[in-house]
Amino acid sequence: MKDIDVLIEALPYIKKFHDKKILIKYGGHAMVDDKAKSSTARDTVLLKYVGMKPLIVHGGGPEISRSMNKLGKQAKFIKGLRVTDEETMEIIEMVLVGKISTEIVSELIKHDGQAISLSGKDSSLIFAHKKGASKIDEELVDLGLVGEVDCINTNLLEMFLDNDYIPVISPVGIAEDGTSLNLNADTAAGEVASAIGAEKLIILTDVPGVLRDPSDPTSLIQKIKVDEIPSLIDEGIISGGMIPKIETCINAINNGVGSCHIIDGRKKHSILLEIFTTNGIGTMIYK
Amino acid sequence: MKDIDVLIEALPYIKKFHDKKILIKYGGHAMVDDKAKSSTARDTVLLKYVGMKPLIVHGGGPEISRSMNKLGKQAKFIKGLRVTDEETMEIIEMVLVGKISTEIVSELIKHDGQAISLSGKDSSLIFAHKKGASKIDEELVDLGLVGEVDCINTNLLEMFLDNDYIPVISPVGIAEDGTSLNLNADTAAGEVASAIGAEKLIILTDVPGVLRDPSDPTSLIQKIKVDEIPSLIDEGIISGGMIPKIETCINAINNGVGSCHIIDGRKKHSILLEIFTTNGIGTMIYK
Amino acid sequence: MKDIDVLIEALPYIKKFHDKKILIKYGGHAMVDDKAKSSTARDTVLLKYVGMKPLIVHGGGPEISRSMNKLGKQAKFIKGLRVTDEETMEIIEMVLVGKISTEIVSELIKHDGQAISLSGKDSSLIFAHKKGASKIDEELVDLGLVGEVDCINTNLLEMFLDNDYIPVISPVGIAEDGTSLNLNADTAAGEVASAIGAEKLIILTDVPGVLRDPSDPTSLIQKIKVDEIPSLIDEGIISGGMIPKIETCINAINNGVGSCHIIDGRKKHSILLEIFTTNGIGTMIYK
Amino acid sequence: MKDIDVLIEALPYIKKFHDKKILIKYGGHAMVDDKAKSSTARDTVLLKYVGMKPLIVHGGGPEISRSMNKLGKQAKFIKGLRVTDEETMEIIEMVLVGKISTEIVSELIKHDGQAISLSGKDSSLIFAHKKGASKIDEELVDLGLVGEVDCINTNLLEMFLDNDYIPVISPVGIAEDGTSLNLNADTAAGEVASAIGAEKLIILTDVPGVLRDPSDPTSLIQKIKVDEIPSLIDEGIISGGMIPKIETCINAINNGVGSCHIIDGRKKHSILLEIFTTNGIGTMIYK
Amino acid sequence: MKDIDVLIEALPYIKKFHDKKILIKYGGHAMVDDKAKSSTARDTVLLKYVGMKPLIVHGGGPEISRSMNKLGKQAKFIKGLRVTDEETMEIIEMVLVGKISTEIVSELIKHDGQAISLSGKDSSLIFAHKKGASKIDEELVDLGLVGEVDCINTNLLEMFLDNDYIPVISPVGIAEDGTSLNLNADTAAGEVASAIGAEKLIILTDVPGVLRDPSDPTSLIQKIKVDEIPSLIDEGIISGGMIPKIETCINAINNGVGSCHIIDGRKKHSILLEIFTTNGIGTMIYK
Amino acid sequence: MKDIDVLIEALPYIKKFHDKKILIKYGGHAMVDDKAKSSTARDTVLLKYVGMKPLIVHGGGPEISRSMNKLGKQAKFIKGLRVTDEETMEIIEMVLVGKISTEIVSELIKHDGQAISLSGKDSSLIFAHKKGASKIDEELVDLGLVGEVDCINTNLLEMFLDNDYIPVISPVGIAEDGTSLNLNADTAAGEVASAIGAEKLIILTDVPGVLRDPSDPTSLIQKIKVDEIPSLIDEGIISGGMIPKIETCINAINNGVGSCHIIDGRKKHSILLEIFTTNGIGTMIYK
Repeated sequence: MKDIDVLIEALPYIKKFHDKKILIKYGGHAMVDDKAKSSTARDTVLLKYVGMKPLIVHGGGPEISRSMNKLGKQAKFIKGLRVTDEETMEIIEMVLVGKISTEIVSELIKHDGQAISLSGKDSSLIFAHKKGASKIDEELVDLGLVGEVDCINTNLLEMFLDNDYIPVISPVGIAEDGTSLNLNADTAAGEVASAIGAEKLIILTDVPGVLRDPSDPTSLIQKIKVDEIPSLIDEGIISGGMIPKIETCINAINNGVGSCHIIDGRKKHSILLEIFTTNGIGTMIYK
Repeated sequence: MKDIDVLIEALPYIKKFHDKKILIKYGGHAMVDDKAKSSTARDTVLLKYVGMKPLIVHGGGPEISRSMNKLGKQAKFIKGLRVTDEETMEIIEMVLVGKISTEIVSELIKHDGQAISLSGKDSSLIFAHKKGASKIDEELVDLGLVGEVDCINTNLLEMFLDNDYIPVISPVGIAEDGTSLNLNADTAAGEVASAIGAEKLIILTDVPGVLRDPSDPTSLIQKIKVDEIPSLIDEGIISGGMIPKIETCINAINNGVGSCHIIDGRKKHSILLEIFTTNGIGTMIYK
Repeated sequence: MKDIDVLIEALPYIKKFHDKKILIKYGGHAMVDDKAKSSTARDTVLLKYVGMKPLIVHGGGPEISRSMNKLGKQAKFIKGLRVTDEETMEIIEMVLVGKISTEIVSELIKHDGQAISLSGKDSSLIFAHKKGASKIDEELVDLGLVGEVDCINTNLLEMFLDNDYIPVISPVGIAEDGTSLNLNADTAAGEVASAIGAEKLIILTDVPGVLRDPSDPTSLIQKIKVDEIPSLIDEGIISGGMIPKIETCINAINNGVGSCHIIDGRKKHSILLEIFTTNGIGTMIYK
Repeated sequence: MKDIDVLIEALPYIKKFHDKKILIKYGGHAMVDDKAKSSTARDTVLLKYVGMKPLIVHGGGPEISRSMNKLGKQAKFIKGLRVTDEETMEIIEMVLVGKISTEIVSELIKHDGQAISLSGKDSSLIFAHKKGASKIDEELVDLGLVGEVDCINTNLLEMFLDNDYIPVISPVGIAEDGTSLNLNADTAAGEVASAIGAEKLIILTDVPGVLRDPSDPTSLIQKIKVDEIPSLIDEGIISGGMIPKIETCINAINNGVGSCHIIDGRKKHSILLEIFTTNGIGTMIYK
Repeated sequence: MKDIDVLIEALPYIKKFHDKKILIKYGGHAMVDDKAKSSTARDTVLLKYVGMKPLIVHGGGPEISRSMNKLGKQAKFIKGLRVTDEETMEIIEMVLVGKISTEIVSELIKHDGQAISLSGKDSSLIFAHKKGASKIDEELVDLGLVGEVDCINTNLLEMFLDNDYIPVISPVGIAEDGTSLNLNADTAAGEVASAIGAEKLIILTDVPGVLRDPSDPTSLIQKIKVDEIPSLIDEGIISGGMIPKIETCINAINNGVGSCHIIDGRKKHSILLEIFTTNGIGTMIYK
Repeated sequence: MKDIDVLIEALPYIKKFHDKKILIKYGGHAMVDDKAKSSTARDTVLLKYVGMKPLIVHGGGPEISRSMNKLGKQAKFIKGLRVTDEETMEIIEMVLVGKISTEIVSELIKHDGQAISLSGKDSSLIFAHKKGASKIDEELVDLGLVGEVDCINTNLLEMFLDNDYIPVISPVGIAEDGTSLNLNADTAAGEVASAIGAEKLIILTDVPGVLRDPSDPTSLIQKIKVDEIPSLIDEGIISGGMIPKIETCINAINNGVGSCHIIDGRKKHSILLEIFTTNGIGTMIYK
């Protein structure tokens, strides 16, 4: 019966993050597997009940491709990069807002969390502009309705947090003329975390964190100072798909977020383990 | 320059409905035609700016069938009635929440209205239960994931109205186990209007209102007392698809809504003409 | 039935001036003619109902002279300028506060505006000091109980505006020893507009505005930049009684008022036409 | 230096009436004599500063007759009773609102009380209807614009009291059509005291209170139970002009006012002596 | 690392008792042993941080006797019962308020709880009257300054709870004349719990709870319905010092407290184990 | 009956100190003599009722020595200075918090003041650190658990004042590790007065104030500017026990306290006489 000590061990963290905003980027396995979905939702609700203020930004993952296939919509590519045309954007929005967000809300509600799904269009939550064409192989390539965030309507989010709601945000931006724009979910999560003054940005992935040797899961780097990142990139330790995630973390921290965490969403209770234990289970980036 | 008199003529109505909640059921032409969409949104925002509190419930209309076709999903029918199976419900939700709601929000934002799309699932806005099988031709028929409203989370709506947001609600209910349920949009609009204590429920349709002679658009009945409805049904004047709409109105009025209005969404500024002129342009049901 | 378009045309102005303070200086015809009084009051109440915050400062006009005559009180003059002795001041106060203000309040209430009459003495609303003797024709002339405004008790006005009351203010100042002081109504209006941070100061007069050729009412100057005023005075276009009004406007704008408007109170709905149409009907002074 | 004991003696009363509303009916000498005016104002402000909530209703007294004379206005009489025609009402309003109220406000401000003058017309503070013709000597006599109170807009008064203002109210009523009506000041004071839930109604008069023998000022009756009044009237002890005042007191007490006090406004600090000493100096009517 | 499951297991209880008031009666070992003191304080602070509202009432225990001995004060007894004379009461108050309460506050502060010690005299928190003489062996015995609770000033406690303070209350009552009265700590705890509307009253003792066989600690009765108590007393299972505690529980439950818990303060984390596990560790009394 | 003039004479002071915080340091005779205790409490409550915000810091005086004697505790001295060891501190705390504070609270409650006793430990009201050893006669002397104030938790005090409670504070500090520290009561009073932004710090003593000639009570100095103090010390006029009190005053004034007053607590109503009369009765130190 000494298990109850875990509660006591959690106490310092509960105190430390009392009333603090925790932005959780849902992604990967945690959004696909039914058991993982439920577990992640329960962990998020627990954060709310022990006094923190969680917010969620989710990505779209494989669901979008699946829906496009079903609709017989052929993906366009230029120089190997996917192009978001109007029809694609419409499908993306339907899937993100009408399917993924509402499912996450359902899971949170099942665990007694008051959750609300928000598109970046709702009350202009995420103002964005269309990304210009960029040069690839000496050629200007326009990837279509892809956006870059300009600003976040934090009043709306504060209203939700003050009234004990958990916002669940789809990475869709709204341009000045009302057009919907496709946003990178990690970037959107970082921008929201910065704007709202989050204490933590937690990114759920399908890897254990930053590994010194990608083939060796035991080579996890638990803590990285922002200053150390350039040399880790130079050494090739941070590479590939991890680079944009790390860049999101750098920006967030430079904009006032307390710390960023890249953790393994496949592990049960990964969010709680990261927050409530000394070493956590993933990689923490801090200043 | 005497046009300004129109403002003065509108004043008594502006006063009378100051701070009052106006539930507008979007449907038909007003949700399909681009110009009509924009015009309806602008009228709604005007109500907000002259001091009323508009809320929107919208239907799905032809968009859902179109999406189902695209997805190669064959509609199931029993005894001629459409059945909502799980896959159908998923598509309905994607279209209502991810497409129609977000489009309406976009239009409202273009006219400077702060709008927010809400599914009935958000923070359990619309609690519902699955409608039981009903007897048709001596046979029990189960139409699947079709819901009947149990209660409305008015706290959430009041928070939005108090903070000057226009809620845009999809007719999706949430069952106790978190399942999504398909709701009749008119009924959902009536339930929300009753729960929130709306002064008016305005239903946009593609007919001029209740006609004494359906073939003669000039035979419009401008006002109907709730008491008069049974005999109008007996006489066959109210019939067909108008009957469920009228029943929604009766329920709403019996639950405290001030008046209900069935108007022609195809006419420009129909909402304003109904509210700001003595006779209106459609049919008003009152107590 | 396309008149309703006027409402739609007014919408951008309704949005723009939402929650903004509009100081209306009542004067001339609009305070004398019964129909004009009623119409001006209704227009003012309309501003309130569509979301603005009107305040009124009124002058005394011919009513004071009439009352003095009735009381057999002979006006005193020095060098052709009227002198305000104690008895005169008493009559002025009775007429302004006890007759004109209460009549304006009555008219506003008839149109469902919650109005309250305020003397500059109420809770020291307008603190003033006695104007010193000024040199006229090489001679020092003391015009008696004439005041210059020192400061405005904006807390009192904010309380009224926050509670949806329309303040109706008489141009009477209170000196430190409690003496009543006669104030120029235009100046008082400008001071209140500045102190309260009004968006607009609208001065009702009996001329169409600033005319390039006083004998030609079609020579109205619709907009004047503050910078242009000195040369307009040099050219003699702004002259006579218009000069102090224009000076009031300059001061108000330099103290943060958005724009000033000199309009013809004899024209029906002049206030609405000035606010809700692109060109207005009078002269706008702006920065 | 033992005078300070008076403060201590006052303490129980200060505690007892903390935050309580005290309606003071100004009348007679206290409104005429300059020293008395100042002293009464200072006493009123002291009540405010030691934690009570004073409100003032004042009468018109001799000032109205004087003004009418000055204006050469001949008073009309029917059966010996003064008739209020439109012109008379206009003068009454000017004097009450424009002269007497503003003077009282000035005095209160001199003693650092935040006071605001209010006509019964301001935001429809005192709704009234015209008194019908009454039978006098078998003849129906219509006294003109004389009103009977219908209801008091207590919201307005509560706003002032909550913001620490002292309301100074003229006994003018407003009819539904906006007409001004002349009210009996004592009655108006009683109605306001009842509506606002005053703890005390203090009526300043020019007599010591109710005297057992009118010719003997030492025969003051200090306390009268409401029940005892009928027999005191029967005995002729309460008679003449005292009867309507006593009736006002009866009504006020029956409507919840704690106690009513008829005191001598000619005595210095009569208000304080009545409130802060055991026996008071006038007559207290209680339940 | 699966310990984190304990947090998840605690979640339903954290939700269920969110914002609920938990009255903890400190007593016995938990107030004597240094480690137990610290542990109990930490557990209490944890309740606060996970969203509950704990309040503490403590007893005096052996500390009072020790102090009396030190002061050479001989305890008086009548018929074997201790008598509280004035000098004794003075010592009791000094020990309870000046020593025990401040020590508990220190412990809570060490664990980051904002705690405030309160005597029942503070702002008349616990109004009480002196218990009359009671008959013992046919003789009337007056035990001196011993009190019975009349009422609790819940406003004061609500102010503390609303501002996130943990009140620590000494069982001292104040009589109408300001005299201090000695209160039974269990009874005082029950009265406070009832008055404040506590969800739980948790009494820390030095026994495991109610035992079916006092000599067998494994014979613990986990749950007792209020109705079952009389027969348990008849059977002699509840007896001796347990009877007054049980009576306190009965009263509390009849006055609206959700449940009462008699638990073993000597066991580590007994409070947490009782609240956060299905069976708890002591005896729960419920309706 | 002209005594009531005293109330009027007090009015300017009542106005001037309306809503101002008045810190009263209870000490000497006013804490010992029963009549003086009651009288001082009543005066304090009067300040509250006439609109000021009194706070009390009290000393321990002879009560502590008496209790130590009773407990047979021998005081330790080094170089003639009393040493506060742990046991002594425990007794000090019991007497200050458990006896003196609660007695003062009782007295205030008897006069209808809502009072609350606070130790400097409650919610870390007075954070302090142990004073280091100081050099006396070339030797380092450690006086034990004696503290120096670091900071005051003004939030807690503001909560009490906003809710109309009178805080009664014992001069006990809390160190970072939770240890209790003995504080000089005058110094503590000065620190609280500074932190809370008091208008006045009133120190009750057993002398008439600062005397030019200590043997001549009529040689009182009524007012001392802070600048004049050094020369008064040089001249030997301020000397002995008065020096630390004066230093407390200098610090308080330099930290924003309006004025400090050293008055004779033996004189009846000394607090009131100091505040409500022009010259006061003691010595005022000001900037």
